[in-house]
Amino acid sequence: MFTAQPIGYIRSPYKETSAIPKGLGAKHEAEGVIELLREFEAGLKDIEGFTHLIVLWEFDRADGFDLIAHPPTDAKRPHGVFATRSPRRPNPIGLTVVELLGRNGAALHVRGIDMLDGTPVLDIKPYLSSIPIEKIKRGWLAEAEKAGSRE
Amino acid sequence: MFTAQPIGYIRSPYKETSAIPKGLGAKHEAEGVIELLREFEAGLKDIEGFTHLIVLWEFDRADGFDLIAHPPTDAKRPHGVFATRSPRRPNPIGLTVVELLGRNGAALHVRGIDMLDGTPVLDIKPYLSSIPIEKIKRGWLAEAEKAGSRE
Repeated sequence: MFTAQPIGYIRSPYKETSAIPKGLGAKHEAEGVIELLREFEAGLKDIEGFTHLIVLWEFDRADGFDLIAHPPTDAKRPHGVFATRSPRRPNPIGLTVVELLGRNGAALHVRGIDMLDGTPVLDIKPYLSSIPIEKIKRGWLAEAEKAGSRE
Repeated sequence: MFTAQPIGYIRSPYKETSAIPKGLGAKHEAEGVIELLREFEAGLKDIEGFTHLIVLWEFDRADGFDLIAHPPTDAKRPHGVFATRSPRRPNPIGLTVVELLGRNGAALHVRGIDMLDGTPVLDIKPYLSSIPIEKIKRGWLAEAEKAGSRE
């Protein structure tokens, strides 16, 4: 296996976990910057053509993992960690889809940030295709949303 | 930073890279199995409720990386590695969205496999939302598809 290395860092308005919108209906509209290290800048060639990017990053402030998670969207019912976006995962890799607003050299200005300021970035991939929304079932999360809207 | 660890392995019909459909219009309909290690099985609780999963895995047969990639979909024009799905990335992490067909203990039967047999799995996350297709621009890839359809 490999040892993860940062290719850059996130500049985000969120300085601590409690500031990040969480739970049902949380909107991630925050803007921020993906600052790539200069040595990786050449890897961004032609990225401007994509409107959306998948960013993989490290949950660098999570310590260890749990197989059972208690997500804020469904506090009363625990779920397996792989059925959640919990930070406490065997491999502490986070995934965020962001909208690319512009590029300035090694800096990508993006919308949809939900990472903490200073988060190490592991990879950037173009977001290529969508599964039609009517084909997606979201298990416990859809149930929690339904229950929440009745309260 | 962390050292990646396998949480399981892919059972795939593809035994070598050349067998995986590539290039424009490649369809990934192959079925396979994500075999989680027993010690991680508890992390799958409630995963059956999701139709689609994001699988993160290791390009374990890629050796090193290039900042400029030559994807098979656009062989004449090089692109930055972060604007492609090339296996030769600074962090050799692959991403595949699969459809969950069924679960048997620690084994997830899925459709949409594009990994080699024996590929180490790093993480599984629920696929939650879709960006409407009309909002997505796919840069050089859309251009290559257009050019390809004229040939």
